[in-house]
Amino acid sequence: MSVQKIKARIIVAANTDRGTHVWCQAFEQALPGARLIPWNEADEDSRADYALVWKPPGALFRRETRLKAVFNLGAGVDGLLSLPDLPVGLPVVRLEDAGMTEQMVEYVVHGLLRVSREFAAYETQQRALAWKPLRPVEREQWPVGVMGLGAIGLSVAQAIARLGYPVAGWARSHRDIAGISVFAGLAQLPAFLARTRVLVNVLPLTGDTENILNRQNLERLRAPAYLINVARGSHLVEQDLLDLLDSGHMQGALLDVFRVEPLPADHPFWRHEKVTVTPHIAAITLREHTVEQIVNKIHSLEQGLPVSGLVSRDHGY
Amino acid sequence: MSVQKIKARIIVAANTDRGTHVWCQAFEQALPGARLIPWNEADEDSRADYALVWKPPGALFRRETRLKAVFNLGAGVDGLLSLPDLPVGLPVVRLEDAGMTEQMVEYVVHGLLRVSREFAAYETQQRALAWKPLRPVEREQWPVGVMGLGAIGLSVAQAIARLGYPVAGWARSHRDIAGISVFAGLAQLPAFLARTRVLVNVLPLTGDTENILNRQNLERLRAPAYLINVARGSHLVEQDLLDLLDSGHMQGALLDVFRVEPLPADHPFWRHEKVTVTPHIAAITLREHTVEQIVNKIHSLEQGLPVSGLVSRDHGY
Repeated sequence: MSVQKIKARIIVAANTDRGTHVWCQAFEQALPGARLIPWNEADEDSRADYALVWKPPGALFRRETRLKAVFNLGAGVDGLLSLPDLPVGLPVVRLEDAGMTEQMVEYVVHGLLRVSREFAAYETQQRALAWKPLRPVEREQWPVGVMGLGAIGLSVAQAIARLGYPVAGWARSHRDIAGISVFAGLAQLPAFLARTRVLVNVLPLTGDTENILNRQNLERLRAPAYLINVARGSHLVEQDLLDLLDSGHMQGALLDVFRVEPLPADHPFWRHEKVTVTPHIAAITLREHTVEQIVNKIHSLEQGLPVSGLVSRDHGY
Repeated sequence: MSVQKIKARIIVAANTDRGTHVWCQAFEQALPGARLIPWNEADEDSRADYALVWKPPGALFRRETRLKAVFNLGAGVDGLLSLPDLPVGLPVVRLEDAGMTEQMVEYVVHGLLRVSREFAAYETQQRALAWKPLRPVEREQWPVGVMGLGAIGLSVAQAIARLGYPVAGWARSHRDIAGISVFAGLAQLPAFLARTRVLVNVLPLTGDTENILNRQNLERLRAPAYLINVARGSHLVEQDLLDLLDSGHMQGALLDVFRVEPLPADHPFWRHEKVTVTPHIAAITLREHTVEQIVNKIHSLEQGLPVSGLVSRDHGY
């Protein structure tokens, strides 16, 4: 990390006061010379150069009028981009990786192996004191499809391919990836789904991808299908999944994200025997990686250099 | 696979009559021209050239006196080598891979992720309708050690290293493996164990390795430690593990192999809350891979060519 001093003024709004405080401290240490300013509703324009935000109040962008860029403290920018006061021309920089790719790979690989190798069934057998080998897995019976081939989706797809499973990916536009069949665009979505049994969703949430995990699309999957959703709750039409679990077309689902989080106590997913619920922990932002990455980007911007991770407002990610 | 006809006589003894029958059929298709002879106690010497065996009766080697080689229908040859009637000079060929490496990697990776990412705890929370993210995993807190660096151990270690975990391996003699710290011989065993929290055993069972998972060695692990045993039950001193689970030094164990299999119903492992029992399914021989591999080796031997997988009687594997 560069030790060059940056005189920038940086406002921080991280959803909770405590979160804001912790991020301020971490960036103060990593950016000697910079002024870290915690967001406060009551303050006036602090003339900040940069904003570091996670689920920020819309008022921030009305008040801070001199921002050169806003850094999102997480991977998904759907919430940020939906703020009506976000200036159209303001560069938005999303978090890239920061330890999250490794975690996503782990989460998905664990979920895939758990279903394809029937480890839950073996745990049930243990409770019954039953020594009963089940038929060995044949990987050809478990074609995996990864929706979204950004940095995370690509790593997930490659990790699964290395384990020996047939893997396809679906993305907005075509590209060549060794060992992975790539399907592109809405035209190839039906074919992608038809060859997929385990569907892994790592898409960004945009107007185009909201509700994409609906009955029509899930019904195209090779039955009995399995869904792993680690992207956003709004990708999934929850009732459609419940119906297809009941019909047997879907054999189960591993869900880390939900339309309403925390998942309400009366939501049927909690008690559904075919649904595994985790509390949005597939990939948790690791603070030190995040700080290092954003500090490096601020240094670049201050020197007039380009940075990666700039969000396309048109694409929504 | 070569289509050249082989006129060899091949005796098959696969533990059960049904198993023997199924293997005979599979090899008959793959070796047109060869004669496949199911083992029968009552028969006389069938003048077989090769024997294909899994847990064979010792009498086979007293009766079949013209064998050129014996092929083991599984990876572990400890049972075969322990037969007193196995001729000293008879080449023993073990099964190499046959789809087993991939399965072992899957089993170990699933077990590692399950403990390091606390997925069992999340399942418990789901039953309590509790939305409660736990602290994210830091991989430096989960150094993994793989005992045994043959084809399977090496693949297991490399798969874990690719996930970002610190990995060391322990083997009889030293070698350089990118990304993996290799410890060699008994002299370096204490240092290997001291840096290891998750211990993965894939050693062959020999006089040197029997009981190697004993109190003295397990106590050296970094607490709270976790054991994954996918090799042989006789590597582990079961009571020592139970004692160390009770003391808290070991936080859990995932066991696929046992001194007595099937694991007796009154064995404490079945009901121990920190022990996961699976019925020797970490890697199941996949028939078509096995047939293809052995057929190719018979072709080689018939042409006077060398084959891989020859067992060293001195090393016991």
